[in-house]
Amino acid sequence: MSAAVSPAGPAPIVAVIGGGQLARMLAEPAAALGIPLRLLAEAPGVSAAQVIPDHEVGDFTDLTTLRLVTDGCAVVTFDHEHVPTEHLHALDAAGIAVRPGPDALVHAQDKAVMRRALSAMGVPCPRHAVVRTPAEVVAFGFPCVLKTTRGGYDGKGVWFVEGPQDCPALGSGATILAEERVDFRRELSALVARSPSGQVAAWPIVASTQRNGICHEVVAPAPDLDPELAVQAQQIAMRIAGELNVTGVLAVELFETRQGQVLVNELAMRPHNTGHWTQDGSVTSQFENHLRALLDLPLGAPDAREPWTVMVNILGGTRQTGHLYAGYPHALARDPRLRVHLYGKELRPGRKVGHVNAYGDDLEDCLERARHAAAWFAGDLGDDSR
Amino acid sequence: MSAAVSPAGPAPIVAVIGGGQLARMLAEPAAALGIPLRLLAEAPGVSAAQVIPDHEVGDFTDLTTLRLVTDGCAVVTFDHEHVPTEHLHALDAAGIAVRPGPDALVHAQDKAVMRRALSAMGVPCPRHAVVRTPAEVVAFGFPCVLKTTRGGYDGKGVWFVEGPQDCPALGSGATILAEERVDFRRELSALVARSPSGQVAAWPIVASTQRNGICHEVVAPAPDLDPELAVQAQQIAMRIAGELNVTGVLAVELFETRQGQVLVNELAMRPHNTGHWTQDGSVTSQFENHLRALLDLPLGAPDAREPWTVMVNILGGTRQTGHLYAGYPHALARDPRLRVHLYGKELRPGRKVGHVNAYGDDLEDCLERARHAAAWFAGDLGDDSR
Repeated sequence: MSAAVSPAGPAPIVAVIGGGQLARMLAEPAAALGIPLRLLAEAPGVSAAQVIPDHEVGDFTDLTTLRLVTDGCAVVTFDHEHVPTEHLHALDAAGIAVRPGPDALVHAQDKAVMRRALSAMGVPCPRHAVVRTPAEVVAFGFPCVLKTTRGGYDGKGVWFVEGPQDCPALGSGATILAEERVDFRRELSALVARSPSGQVAAWPIVASTQRNGICHEVVAPAPDLDPELAVQAQQIAMRIAGELNVTGVLAVELFETRQGQVLVNELAMRPHNTGHWTQDGSVTSQFENHLRALLDLPLGAPDAREPWTVMVNILGGTRQTGHLYAGYPHALARDPRLRVHLYGKELRPGRKVGHVNAYGDDLEDCLERARHAAAWFAGDLGDDSR
Repeated sequence: MSAAVSPAGPAPIVAVIGGGQLARMLAEPAAALGIPLRLLAEAPGVSAAQVIPDHEVGDFTDLTTLRLVTDGCAVVTFDHEHVPTEHLHALDAAGIAVRPGPDALVHAQDKAVMRRALSAMGVPCPRHAVVRTPAEVVAFGFPCVLKTTRGGYDGKGVWFVEGPQDCPALGSGATILAEERVDFRRELSALVARSPSGQVAAWPIVASTQRNGICHEVVAPAPDLDPELAVQAQQIAMRIAGELNVTGVLAVELFETRQGQVLVNELAMRPHNTGHWTQDGSVTSQFENHLRALLDLPLGAPDAREPWTVMVNILGGTRQTGHLYAGYPHALARDPRLRVHLYGKELRPGRKVGHVNAYGDDLEDCLERARHAAAWFAGDLGDDSR
C-alpha cells in the first residue's frame, strides 16, 4: 500500500499510535520538516500529547478508535509494538499505509515468529526452541532464558532460569521461547532506516549496556569493534530490513560473543533507545529518518558528526521522586555542551524519564559527563536537598 | 522581576506572544528540555499553533487577552516586537517575568530610542537624526535612508532617498529617522544570549546578505573577517546586551565599512534570522539558549560545530505558489546532508516560508548546496511541473 500523496499537494498527515517519548521525539523533526502529526494517546497529557496539538485520547486495541484517528492520514506508524496485528491488516485494507506493515511488524511483536524467520534466513541467532512444559525446558537445557513471545519489553516477560524450580510462566497458556544463555562480551545494536522503495541508511554500530533489563548506556561507535564484525552487523540489519520488508527504523540488538561472532538478540521496528545518540551525534537522527522513510522520502545521511557520542538514560532511582526541572542549574552549568532530552514525565523508580547525550573527541570525557548528568537528574548522586 | 520558579517544582510554563516561525522553532528545544509553552496566536492554524498544543487565538494588542494567556506562566517572551510597551509594563507589574523586559525591548521597538541609547554608550552608529519635515531631510543631506521608528520589519518602513522628491512618509505624523547611506563592504550579525543573572553566550560573527530588505543568506562564520573586528563586533553586542539589560537572544546587525569599521544597523531582541544557522551548525541553537536565558538557566555553548554553515531562506518567488512538500524528493535525494526547516506556511510571493542549512568543510560546496535547495523549494529553478 503506497501513501496516497499527491505530488503537488500539501504535506501528508502522519498518524502515530501511542503517546510515549518516541512519539514525542518524532514531533521535533516533524515540526522542522513541516509534516503534520496526528496522535492517538493512551491518556490526557501523556508525553507526546504535550507537544502534538492534533491528538485524540483513546484505546489502541479498539479498531473503531484506530479508524477514526487515521481517517484522512496517508500513513500510520507506532510508538510501541502492541497494536493487534489484525487491526493493522484492517487499516491496510482501508487504504492507510501501515508502516511498518503488519507482515513485517509481527517479527517485532512475536519472538517465536522472529526466531523462525531469522533462522530460515540463516541469520545467526542464539540456540532456541518454543517450550510448553517444564519437561521441554529440561530437554532444552539449563541455564537458559525464557521469554514470553508477545508483550514483553524493557526486561518484562524475561526470566533467567537456572533449573526446573524457576519456570514461572510455563503452564500459564502463553507461548514461551527458551534461548541459550549467551556468554557475550557485550551487547551491540545495528540501527537502519528503510524506505518502501528500498533505500536503506545504516548508522554506525553502537555498544549498549543494560541495567535491570533496560537499556542504560550507549556508546557510538562501539569502541574497539573489529571493522569486519561492524560490517557484518550492518549487513545483518540491512538484510533483515530488506527480507522482512521493514519500513522505517529497525533496531537489531546483537550479542558480540567472546569468540568474535554476532548473534541477534531482539528486533524493534521503530526508533529505539539505542538510537537516541543520533539526535545530537549524527547528521540525521533516527526520528527524522523514520519520518522520511514512512513517507518514502529520500533518507538523510546517517554518519556520525563526532568521534564519540555517549547516551545515558535518566532512570528513576529509589531515592528521588518528583520533577526533573530542579536538576537543570547544576547539570547545565557543569557542562555547557550537554544535550538533555526530557520526556515530560515525573520521576518514579525504574521509569525512563529522559536521556542525555555528550559528544566529543575523548571517550572517557564523554562517558564521565553523560553518566554524571544522568545520575544527577535521577537523584542518584549529590545531596537530596536540590 | 524574577521568574517565580520553586526549586523543586515542575518546569515553569513559558508564554510566547505571536505564532510565527520563531515561536514554532522555539517549540523544538522546549519539547527536548521538557519546558511547557503556552502560545498566543494571531489566528487559528498559524505556524506555531500547528506545533504548540497549549495555545489561544487572540489579539496581542489587547491587555485582557495578554493577561489571560500569561496567567500561571512564570515568563513571557515574544515572536515579534509589536506588543505595546505599556502592556509589557502591566504584565511586569502583575508579577510575570517579561523577557526581554519593556525597558530593554523598547530599543528594538523604536529606532530613535535605540540610536539615542547607542550614541550615549559610544557605540559606533551611522550618522542619524530624527526628521519631521522635508526641509530637515534636506538639511540632513542626500542620499540617505528614512525609517519609521516603529513597526518596520523585513524592509517595510524603510525608504532609500535620493532627493526631496522621494520623502513619502514625511508629514504622515510618524516619527522618522534619517540615516546616512553607509558604503559598506558587507553586513555582519553579532548574536548573543544573555540571562537575567548576566551570563552571556556569544555565537561566532556571521555575514548576511539581504534581498529586497529581507535576510536571504547567512555564512557562519563570516569569511575572511579580521579577527580583531570579530572581537569588536562581539564586544559591541555583549555591551549592548548588558547595558540595556537584555534577557534572551539579542541580534545586532552591523555594517562592515570599506574602511574596516563596524557600525550598528539594527537591533532585534529575540531569535533572529541571522541565527537560524545555529540550529544545525552550533552546539546550542539560538532557540535553546533563548529559552534557557528566559528561565535564568545556565546557557549552552555557542561554538560552531563545523568549519562552515550556510543558511539560505526559502522566499516565495513570483513563479511558484502552493505547497513546499513537493520539493522534498529532489532536494533530499540530491543532498542527504541538507537540513530543512519549513514553517508550515504556503508559498506566496516574498513570504519567508522556510530555510535550509548546509554545513561542511568547504564553503563553496555549502553555498552551492544551500542556494540550490532554497531556490528549488521556492520554485526559482527547474521546471514547474513538480
